[in-house]
Amino acid sequence: MHFSAKKKIKISDLMDGLDASLRGDGECLITGISSIQTAKPGEITFLNNGLYKKFLSTTKASAIILSEEYANECKVTAIISKNPYYTYSRIAQLFHPPKEIIKEIHPSVVIGKDAVISNTASIGAQCVIGNRVRIAENVVIGPGCIIGDDCDIGANTELDARVTLYHHVSIGKRAHLCSGVVIGSDGFGFANQNGQWHKVPQLGGVIIGDDVDIGANTTIDRGAIDPTIIEDGVKLDNLIQIAHNVKIGKNSILAGCVAIAGSTVIGKNCMIGGAACFAGHITVCDNTLITGMTAVTKSITSPGMYSSGIVGAIPNKEFRKNNARFHRLENLMLRVKKLEAKLKTSVKPDTEEQ
Amino acid sequence: MHFSAKKKIKISDLMDGLDASLRGDGECLITGISSIQTAKPGEITFLNNGLYKKFLSTTKASAIILSEEYANECKVTAIISKNPYYTYSRIAQLFHPPKEIIKEIHPSVVIGKDAVISNTASIGAQCVIGNRVRIAENVVIGPGCIIGDDCDIGANTELDARVTLYHHVSIGKRAHLCSGVVIGSDGFGFANQNGQWHKVPQLGGVIIGDDVDIGANTTIDRGAIDPTIIEDGVKLDNLIQIAHNVKIGKNSILAGCVAIAGSTVIGKNCMIGGAACFAGHITVCDNTLITGMTAVTKSITSPGMYSSGIVGAIPNKEFRKNNARFHRLENLMLRVKKLEAKLKTSVKPDTEEQ
Amino acid sequence: MHFSAKKKIKISDLMDGLDASLRGDGECLITGISSIQTAKPGEITFLNNGLYKKFLSTTKASAIILSEEYANECKVTAIISKNPYYTYSRIAQLFHPPKEIIKEIHPSVVIGKDAVISNTASIGAQCVIGNRVRIAENVVIGPGCIIGDDCDIGANTELDARVTLYHHVSIGKRAHLCSGVVIGSDGFGFANQNGQWHKVPQLGGVIIGDDVDIGANTTIDRGAIDPTIIEDGVKLDNLIQIAHNVKIGKNSILAGCVAIAGSTVIGKNCMIGGAACFAGHITVCDNTLITGMTAVTKSITSPGMYSSGIVGAIPNKEFRKNNARFHRLENLMLRVKKLEAKLKTSVKPDTEEQ
Repeated sequence: MHFSAKKKIKISDLMDGLDASLRGDGECLITGISSIQTAKPGEITFLNNGLYKKFLSTTKASAIILSEEYANECKVTAIISKNPYYTYSRIAQLFHPPKEIIKEIHPSVVIGKDAVISNTASIGAQCVIGNRVRIAENVVIGPGCIIGDDCDIGANTELDARVTLYHHVSIGKRAHLCSGVVIGSDGFGFANQNGQWHKVPQLGGVIIGDDVDIGANTTIDRGAIDPTIIEDGVKLDNLIQIAHNVKIGKNSILAGCVAIAGSTVIGKNCMIGGAACFAGHITVCDNTLITGMTAVTKSITSPGMYSSGIVGAIPNKEFRKNNARFHRLENLMLRVKKLEAKLKTSVKPDTEEQ
Repeated sequence: MHFSAKKKIKISDLMDGLDASLRGDGECLITGISSIQTAKPGEITFLNNGLYKKFLSTTKASAIILSEEYANECKVTAIISKNPYYTYSRIAQLFHPPKEIIKEIHPSVVIGKDAVISNTASIGAQCVIGNRVRIAENVVIGPGCIIGDDCDIGANTELDARVTLYHHVSIGKRAHLCSGVVIGSDGFGFANQNGQWHKVPQLGGVIIGDDVDIGANTTIDRGAIDPTIIEDGVKLDNLIQIAHNVKIGKNSILAGCVAIAGSTVIGKNCMIGGAACFAGHITVCDNTLITGMTAVTKSITSPGMYSSGIVGAIPNKEFRKNNARFHRLENLMLRVKKLEAKLKTSVKPDTEEQ
Repeated sequence: MHFSAKKKIKISDLMDGLDASLRGDGECLITGISSIQTAKPGEITFLNNGLYKKFLSTTKASAIILSEEYANECKVTAIISKNPYYTYSRIAQLFHPPKEIIKEIHPSVVIGKDAVISNTASIGAQCVIGNRVRIAENVVIGPGCIIGDDCDIGANTELDARVTLYHHVSIGKRAHLCSGVVIGSDGFGFANQNGQWHKVPQLGGVIIGDDVDIGANTTIDRGAIDPTIIEDGVKLDNLIQIAHNVKIGKNSILAGCVAIAGSTVIGKNCMIGGAACFAGHITVCDNTLITGMTAVTKSITSPGMYSSGIVGAIPNKEFRKNNARFHRLENLMLRVKKLEAKLKTSVKPDTEEQ
């Protein structure tokens, strides 16, 4: 059950321009893509994650994209690649049905004054486009989008249905924003005076680079003074919260439900697991991996993989004991110290404090 | 302050068809429903959660739905049920004012080609309906919804205002989707080649079963190849993230802010607490309970209640000590081992590893 | 890169009505606001967070708002305030460009019957306004908003683009709702009968007080019977989930991604850190601070700062050891108990349980 385009492509043609080698019948006609466990004869699939190796001997696919490592166990035509997932992505593209886009501005669209819209752009039904908005060539804006005043949308960028950009938001080229995304809402800045919260004007914009993907219902606030910045090539999943003046470095990738507090800077090429949270005003260096649900409360200055929390669900009965014990951990330490004193020995490992 | 319909119903009539017994005056006229702490004479209420038992002696309600357990303490007319919350839900339904639905396609709606829409369906203002969409009988689509190409919406399903379905999304019968829901956005699939992320085409659809409820601003991504599947009777709360190729089994219920990573399978009749997170590519068996904020990182193969994390807020001063101590837990273990060696005894409990 | 209004204001005029003192040249003309690290001559900035003190000696700003504490280190004109962030917020307001609002009901708006709309209100393009909606003076409703039947919106309140209010939602005066907000969706109430979930009618409304701010894509469910209540002056950040019958007390402030389960009551003047979660049916007293990612599972009856969880990312290798050790914490305790028994001494600190 998927909707790949109906085509027949010779396997050797599929491989045009790809850094991959063929083992098997290059004349074989491929009619579509499939997952390894559901493939039918004629289809091509891939093996990227070891968890799915078990399907290698039983798959009905006519060809499999995989790494050298698994090639010997492959009984059908093999496309051997150092990066099977990437090779698959290129081949799958050939079976992606073209979008049905009508190059027009739908008559229901409401457009402000002094907007500059390329005649190769298309804008879906019920959109509202603000004053002085600039929309470059081949931009596709889905139905129901609202683009605030003074926004700038770069060439070949796509906004799916019902994206909201506030005013002064700049989006680069070839970006892709999913439905429900909100960019440029006021940063969460309030000053407390005599017990009441007073709004601090949020006067920065938002700058989104080229080749940025933003998932459904993700929110990115505008800066307080300087802009919030998402650099080129950043990939954001669904339901992510990016606070004011955050900066995310080039080619970093963030999984769903991540939350980043104000003014925090994430470096380049970082990978952030789902639901990880970042305190405000900290810096995470380039090439940092953060595992899911981690609470990053201090700056990270050395690349590597970092974690916090307690992960791994265990039976609730055991959990409750451990949880209670944790809340008495300081006490456990004191008991060990007394034992050490009683034994009058220096049993402290070298790494211990004191 | 609620908006139940103005009616007077005899208590014995309220109980028609319900598996519950009456103790008290069946002729009593009930004028509305209420909570136990705010009820006025003439109103009916219920007691389901022991926390609210304290209001039993003071409530002004004329009748209370409760279990046998509490019946003796009830001083007014009692409707005794093995499942008071369910019995309440059936009675409350009688006081729910009918929705004001105009059976029409609002003239502002934009409809694509070859859409097939039942003449008993209603579609609110400013909706955009794609090509080849099929909308069955008695479907109600609220204002501002956007339905992508090739979607299929089953009979008696309701979409509240501003729901977005991408293309190739199938919704069953009697489903209910709240505002801001996004279904069918591209799964978060990117292949890294030479430091850059390349989009992997997402060619699967989404299949939502019958009787599924989906809360506000929840997002469900389309599958990469095979579809993402939400089976019959599943209930999803607000702001939940369901990644590509997740499958959620029949009658499972998920509280708000749950996040499920790609290809994970949740069994049938599971109950998932708020903000719980699931790693990708794992399987959770039927009849599993996961408590709130748990990080499920491995498959669960045996039914039961599971948890992780440290829950229960404590004063921050103590917390900081325990937190620091936790980060030195390995060290504490070493100290205990040295003490054990010193005492030259085998003090290890049977369950301990080497 | 920000969009403050082009103006020149004498520094002494900026300070009109502010509880702050000047040290330096009151005649200096200020042309705009800026952050301390990016300011140019002519601009005014502020220093509120010690982390940014390092820029004090190098900033190019012509004036700085700061506290007495830092005044001696300030080499340019200083505005000395006990509350520099608040003082800044007042001055920044002067440079905030006025919104371009056209006082009209856009012709594309669809309005139900018996709506009462002030002639000083403005309603953006593509909005849908329900039956019997009341909109007070100077209300600004952005494009694409959907207001359900029987809603009430108080004077000077602003709804940004694409806010959704269900029926029977009441919003106070001077409130501000960001894009994607959904208020009044059905509470998540289902009664299980014979393995199937049955919807419990949600008949309460939502009451939002005066001066409430609500961030992008935040969701607030309607009450089951009594209403969900957000009191005056509450500030909610983005992507927050408020379940049915929650009550949030006056002037409390909640950071992004907080989740509050049903019927929980948060007191007045509370500060809740990002992604903190609250169990249902609990009460948190006034003046409580909850740090980020805390899981509050029981009522809090004494003001103060509370926390849970393990925060602070550490290298994953260490984390995995500690995580594994945590899951055996009960066992570690047993080992210490055996050591204590072996030494036949009472080493238990006074605070220890039996």
